[in-house]
Amino acid sequence: MFSHVKELQYNAKPSQPDPVYAKKLQEILGGQYGEMTVMMQYLFQGWNCRAEGKYRDMLLDIGTEEIAHVEMIATMIAQLLDGAPAHDQEQGAKDPAVKAVLGGMNAQHAIVNGLGAQPNDAAGYPWNARYTIGSGNLLADFRANLNAESQGRLQVVRLYEMTTDPGVRDMLSFLIARDKMHQNQWMAAIEELEQTQGAVVPSTFSPDHEKLDVAYSFMNFSEGEESSTGRWASGPALDGNGTFEYVQNPGANGQNPALIPAPAYIHGTPPEDMRVMQNSGGIQPHLQ
Amino acid sequence: MFSHVKELQYNAKPSQPDPVYAKKLQEILGGQYGEMTVMMQYLFQGWNCRAEGKYRDMLLDIGTEEIAHVEMIATMIAQLLDGAPAHDQEQGAKDPAVKAVLGGMNAQHAIVNGLGAQPNDAAGYPWNARYTIGSGNLLADFRANLNAESQGRLQVVRLYEMTTDPGVRDMLSFLIARDKMHQNQWMAAIEELEQTQGAVVPSTFSPDHEKLDVAYSFMNFSEGEESSTGRWASGPALDGNGTFEYVQNPGANGQNPALIPAPAYIHGTPPEDMRVMQNSGGIQPHLQ
Amino acid sequence: MFSHVKELQYNAKPSQPDPVYAKKLQEILGGQYGEMTVMMQYLFQGWNCRAEGKYRDMLLDIGTEEIAHVEMIATMIAQLLDGAPAHDQEQGAKDPAVKAVLGGMNAQHAIVNGLGAQPNDAAGYPWNARYTIGSGNLLADFRANLNAESQGRLQVVRLYEMTTDPGVRDMLSFLIARDKMHQNQWMAAIEELEQTQGAVVPSTFSPDHEKLDVAYSFMNFSEGEESSTGRWASGPALDGNGTFEYVQNPGANGQNPALIPAPAYIHGTPPEDMRVMQNSGGIQPHLQ
Amino acid sequence: MFSHVKELQYNAKPSQPDPVYAKKLQEILGGQYGEMTVMMQYLFQGWNCRAEGKYRDMLLDIGTEEIAHVEMIATMIAQLLDGAPAHDQEQGAKDPAVKAVLGGMNAQHAIVNGLGAQPNDAAGYPWNARYTIGSGNLLADFRANLNAESQGRLQVVRLYEMTTDPGVRDMLSFLIARDKMHQNQWMAAIEELEQTQGAVVPSTFSPDHEKLDVAYSFMNFSEGEESSTGRWASGPALDGNGTFEYVQNPGANGQNPALIPAPAYIHGTPPEDMRVMQNSGGIQPHLQ
Amino acid sequence: MFSHVKELQYNAKPSQPDPVYAKKLQEILGGQYGEMTVMMQYLFQGWNCRAEGKYRDMLLDIGTEEIAHVEMIATMIAQLLDGAPAHDQEQGAKDPAVKAVLGGMNAQHAIVNGLGAQPNDAAGYPWNARYTIGSGNLLADFRANLNAESQGRLQVVRLYEMTTDPGVRDMLSFLIARDKMHQNQWMAAIEELEQTQGAVVPSTFSPDHEKLDVAYSFMNFSEGEESSTGRWASGPALDGNGTFEYVQNPGANGQNPALIPAPAYIHGTPPEDMRVMQNSGGIQPHLQ
Amino acid sequence: MFSHVKELQYNAKPSQPDPVYAKKLQEILGGQYGEMTVMMQYLFQGWNCRAEGKYRDMLLDIGTEEIAHVEMIATMIAQLLDGAPAHDQEQGAKDPAVKAVLGGMNAQHAIVNGLGAQPNDAAGYPWNARYTIGSGNLLADFRANLNAESQGRLQVVRLYEMTTDPGVRDMLSFLIARDKMHQNQWMAAIEELEQTQGAVVPSTFSPDHEKLDVAYSFMNFSEGEESSTGRWASGPALDGNGTFEYVQNPGANGQNPALIPAPAYIHGTPPEDMRVMQNSGGIQPHLQ
Repeated sequence: MFSHVKELQYNAKPSQPDPVYAKKLQEILGGQYGEMTVMMQYLFQGWNCRAEGKYRDMLLDIGTEEIAHVEMIATMIAQLLDGAPAHDQEQGAKDPAVKAVLGGMNAQHAIVNGLGAQPNDAAGYPWNARYTIGSGNLLADFRANLNAESQGRLQVVRLYEMTTDPGVRDMLSFLIARDKMHQNQWMAAIEELEQTQGAVVPSTFSPDHEKLDVAYSFMNFSEGEESSTGRWASGPALDGNGTFEYVQNPGANGQNPALIPAPAYIHGTPPEDMRVMQNSGGIQPHLQ
Repeated sequence: MFSHVKELQYNAKPSQPDPVYAKKLQEILGGQYGEMTVMMQYLFQGWNCRAEGKYRDMLLDIGTEEIAHVEMIATMIAQLLDGAPAHDQEQGAKDPAVKAVLGGMNAQHAIVNGLGAQPNDAAGYPWNARYTIGSGNLLADFRANLNAESQGRLQVVRLYEMTTDPGVRDMLSFLIARDKMHQNQWMAAIEELEQTQGAVVPSTFSPDHEKLDVAYSFMNFSEGEESSTGRWASGPALDGNGTFEYVQNPGANGQNPALIPAPAYIHGTPPEDMRVMQNSGGIQPHLQ
Repeated sequence: MFSHVKELQYNAKPSQPDPVYAKKLQEILGGQYGEMTVMMQYLFQGWNCRAEGKYRDMLLDIGTEEIAHVEMIATMIAQLLDGAPAHDQEQGAKDPAVKAVLGGMNAQHAIVNGLGAQPNDAAGYPWNARYTIGSGNLLADFRANLNAESQGRLQVVRLYEMTTDPGVRDMLSFLIARDKMHQNQWMAAIEELEQTQGAVVPSTFSPDHEKLDVAYSFMNFSEGEESSTGRWASGPALDGNGTFEYVQNPGANGQNPALIPAPAYIHGTPPEDMRVMQNSGGIQPHLQ
Repeated sequence: MFSHVKELQYNAKPSQPDPVYAKKLQEILGGQYGEMTVMMQYLFQGWNCRAEGKYRDMLLDIGTEEIAHVEMIATMIAQLLDGAPAHDQEQGAKDPAVKAVLGGMNAQHAIVNGLGAQPNDAAGYPWNARYTIGSGNLLADFRANLNAESQGRLQVVRLYEMTTDPGVRDMLSFLIARDKMHQNQWMAAIEELEQTQGAVVPSTFSPDHEKLDVAYSFMNFSEGEESSTGRWASGPALDGNGTFEYVQNPGANGQNPALIPAPAYIHGTPPEDMRVMQNSGGIQPHLQ
Repeated sequence: MFSHVKELQYNAKPSQPDPVYAKKLQEILGGQYGEMTVMMQYLFQGWNCRAEGKYRDMLLDIGTEEIAHVEMIATMIAQLLDGAPAHDQEQGAKDPAVKAVLGGMNAQHAIVNGLGAQPNDAAGYPWNARYTIGSGNLLADFRANLNAESQGRLQVVRLYEMTTDPGVRDMLSFLIARDKMHQNQWMAAIEELEQTQGAVVPSTFSPDHEKLDVAYSFMNFSEGEESSTGRWASGPALDGNGTFEYVQNPGANGQNPALIPAPAYIHGTPPEDMRVMQNSGGIQPHLQ
Repeated sequence: MFSHVKELQYNAKPSQPDPVYAKKLQEILGGQYGEMTVMMQYLFQGWNCRAEGKYRDMLLDIGTEEIAHVEMIATMIAQLLDGAPAHDQEQGAKDPAVKAVLGGMNAQHAIVNGLGAQPNDAAGYPWNARYTIGSGNLLADFRANLNAESQGRLQVVRLYEMTTDPGVRDMLSFLIARDKMHQNQWMAAIEELEQTQGAVVPSTFSPDHEKLDVAYSFMNFSEGEESSTGRWASGPALDGNGTFEYVQNPGANGQNPALIPAPAYIHGTPPEDMRVMQNSGGIQPHLQ
């Protein structure tokens, strides 16, 4: 169960409205790696957690914090939209600066949301749940989380560069710091799990059931061999159980597939010898 | 530019048809973490790569291999659908075993695809490009890739457990081994980048511009303190630049937001003092 | 800012696992009118609220409660999935009862989520933000909310009928009661706003700018006149400003549209007189 | 069965082209609350209607009218696109006014649709059927319809404010009047149903099966008590069956959830005591 | 403008309910090539039509007919759902036949739609407008239409094979005949346009601006030369302007791409020589 | 299995960056009829092909070529984004030309993709697999392919008109020529199949099972008879088996549908005679 306090976790006040920037800021609210994604991802991972208690508790700690980040950015966007020149005819429609704002802002902010934040990204595409994952395997999921915080911080930093508004930058500098913590947090949790479980997900599948002869081979499917100089092409593998091998000319070891014709009731392309037929009647149907 | 050989990278032949399993196998073809995802993700990361040549070459090596994995699974699904009892009336529709197959299979495999594989997941939901990321920051993207291979191998292993067909298991054991390699590969590439760039993405943003006082704090937003015992709550942070701190009662440091009313032309809820009005006329409009 | 307590708002414990029912229950978690919808809808309406304080406070009260409902249902689903027979080969795959479960459950619950709840609906379709609305006009939005609680309670009641599990029914009976409250709540808030603003949204647009002669006419576009007997076809309109009128044969008062040809650079279908041309050369292009 | 007359229901002729406005106008054509939504929603409600004949007739009356509204707006958009400067090089590409138009218009209007209307919203997002509902419960659905007409009229009014083109405004003033009628219509139909069925959807579920002790309680989950002053927090409930109660400190009455570990074949995070293992072998697998 | 008569274009009465089949039939209602697709596609093509009048008239003739097809199938589905055993506890939940129905039907038909048709496909995926095209070039669009009627008739035929219900088959035999007409219709319209415009879309682009040396070459990118025996690999091309050529070893004629590094404010992967840095400070940022 | 060479199939080098045009060019990369669509469509058709070998070989030839087209356009877009003025504060934010670029470009190109191509269309909407079809009936699918190449070439030609950059035009002139070949190719393959199978898809369904009396009738559902002058309204049908007939007043031959009430456990709108009830108790429920 949750409760709410009115104050934001950190200040979210722009120095002045900027509806064009409001559109861009939507990316870290409702985008693929926005705050809605980490909020829903951590909460669902916590609710579904079947591992020991500290993981569930930790996931709900951070998932709950992320709701507050969604709140901060939504609040910021609403204020960036204050006074948006949605009202064409009275406010200098001939002024090119006004025109530029009208062209660069998201018209839905005015038409649909009445100068409020949307749960969408910077292209106006709605947030959807396929942005999230909760697999029941925490090592896999913490890697998803580390990725989400890496992409997320990268996007916040890029947005920081795109504005000089001190109020906006102040809020972003807070999010940038929290995302640094969250990257550190997932790295720490991953290290802890890797030390007990091993580095390959899932650790519980027996190597007896996999084709181990291709489990450490880097295969050169793109002409040119620059890739052979990377750490991934020679030396011990990072799971400690094998040695990287560079395969210069990887072969095809499977069959040359030939599918059988579909049954008549599928009405696929008829086999060749059935094809010569009268125009007036069609192939004799199988129906009785 | 690409070229194709007819043989599959590895065999993809089921011992017998199984249209119910074909539906499940769609997950690793067209699902969130299926082969289409890694194929498109690696290819786009390669094509967009602005870093040194070995990374582009490596991304195109593995992206090209993944097209072959899509091919293998599609071929397998088509064969699992051979002889699917889509034709109700002639094939023992009263037989409960046939009924069970009819109920458990994906009807679109017959109606839409004529017993062919779909570019969809196990729920029939189409693959879409928001499953992928290419950010231009390789450390961030390699974390996305490591996650994708972790989720992917986990799903393949689960599907291995759901069948006893030796032909299907043979193909899956190949994919399981390749996903082990690919996890190792991304771990190796990540290690290489972290050693030169540092562990936090992006490494190029100056710490002077972030609120460093919250950059190493774990905040306890969910009642209960089991989370304080994790590696993420004390000790040196993994980026080597700070020390984890556990904040038992994190405070709210932001404003209590109060938004100003929208301009009249937005027609939001009118401010209170405008509300008492005649039913017959509406509020005096601003339009002339 | 938010905080979390570990206990659920109300008990969410099934008497026994039922993976087929788990699939159905997803509808009120991640469906069009599931708890994720009302949670996100109320929170965004609250964060964007530009009206007097009691509305923002109320929206955040109920939005915060809905997060707890999402939590309850997710927890219930995870427990309904306990012991799901995803592992084919060891657990009586020949047993028709097991087969029925395997056929009727959502395979992604095992493959993707490791026996955890998904943020999806009963068809496996992911929740998306276009299910929600926050328009900045509270009367409009409270009508959206009343609808959501009406559809939501209807679905919960239908799900109540589909199970006899006492634990599941206990949780649902709580949600059914809360949805009754929430319908009452939105009806009360709507009544309050209608009394001051009038019944038609938006109330602030001047009637001088609308075609008032069709503002109270019911138009009979479908043969048959049963519709003329409804409350909507005669008597005073509910906004108090007009009288319903039944138009038996509504006329077409607009133009017969005729669009002009597109410019040459659009390469639409060429006008007729340009069509006779040499096969070898194409129409003379406009490009220089 | 349907038939068509060439004339539009009302005129749809802009005074001059305006491709930037054409993009905005898409919202009320193919948006969440555009005319396609009400058209499909009313038609499906009519076709699925299991209640007495006057409802089916009425739904098909209005659903059929809405097709004509889609037609009017599509026709308007095509004309607003006449002469769109999609052809960069010949038409003053250096003219900032042309550039502004090129930047603010929807490029797909030229590239994909050849200066025709799209079935999309103002962000270019395609209309989809999850915008609609037909639940089989008319009281629930009429509330959906009242909401749709409220959001819809609000958006049309906002678009009216965004243009001064007399032709566009003429068409919009017609739609604004019809939406007033349609709001009145649904209010009338709702009143009629509430009087016979009661105000809570569904009315047919026995109160004996719900937790009535929380059926009239407003719960204060967000700090601050402004919400206690609303109509929803005290006095008789609107269904006439209870009295609103304000709960200042709502408690958590459910369990503290603790999920059991997943079976081995799910390969979730292994329980703690299985975690110390040899790197070379993995956990002993359950497969034979 | 449109009007509606109550009678269906053709009978749509199943001989008995069959909720499992109802799920399958959704494909031709709300699927990629279902009746909603052709209805919306033809109507939008008609409304956007800038060519001579007979095309607009024809498009609106057939678009209007398709609304009636949507109506027929929706009506059929509602009746197939009559008496669906959604009510688990009272109706022989132990009966395997009932269980099979419960497993094979679409649970949303009961939970969401109250035994009504959905605007979705057989996988429960909602119809969306990206299924349609209206390009402004009628030859292109009529090819889209011919494809839609070909896929559509194929699906209806497959569904015909999946049932023995005389009532369902009667309706399908009507749709199968209409789809034959509609294929013939688009073939006729295509032939007419090709004769005046030429066969390649768009016909109005000057051959001077294309690389004509590759305009008639079949390129052998997949090992094996069976494709060289097809009509497409030799002989005169169908546009009458060239001769097919088979290129056995198609070459790569483009550059080996090398992208320049991104500007610093993008925070992509830093160039190699910037990578050795102090852990404590990060790369010197460009911000002042 | 696939392999890759570094050189592009044809040059893809813009003469200078143009981030606004990069946004538009996305349409033919990740749009409904972009290169990703034909690539995935042909590859899946090839992998699923159950007809004779030359078709599979041909489909994989062209599918493999299309991957190279995706690569070319992605590479072009990345270069068009070089030097995009995403960095507001240092680069003449007051310069209206810079502002216009900032307003007209896709902000996600900078924020999400770090100046790389996206797998999205010109509206930022992600590519999804419902853009493709593989039905198992090659005649149907080749019509889909001919349509895709027609829409595709049309869009490339329009984009050619929208730029004067010689490098971009050079690449587009190559794609325009290849799309001409591909239209010719599908026309040739269609002709070949029609000659052996007949022109109506599927050819294998017996005419005995269709309502032949409506199989050649053009029905006039839209007032006005211009459509009667088309090739589709009189003369021999193109399948050679019938004669077109023009039906001036097409009749309704189906029932006037009347659905039975839903069972009580569905909680639809109660039948009229159950509606008078006590407010305090609800209708007597059926639950025990």
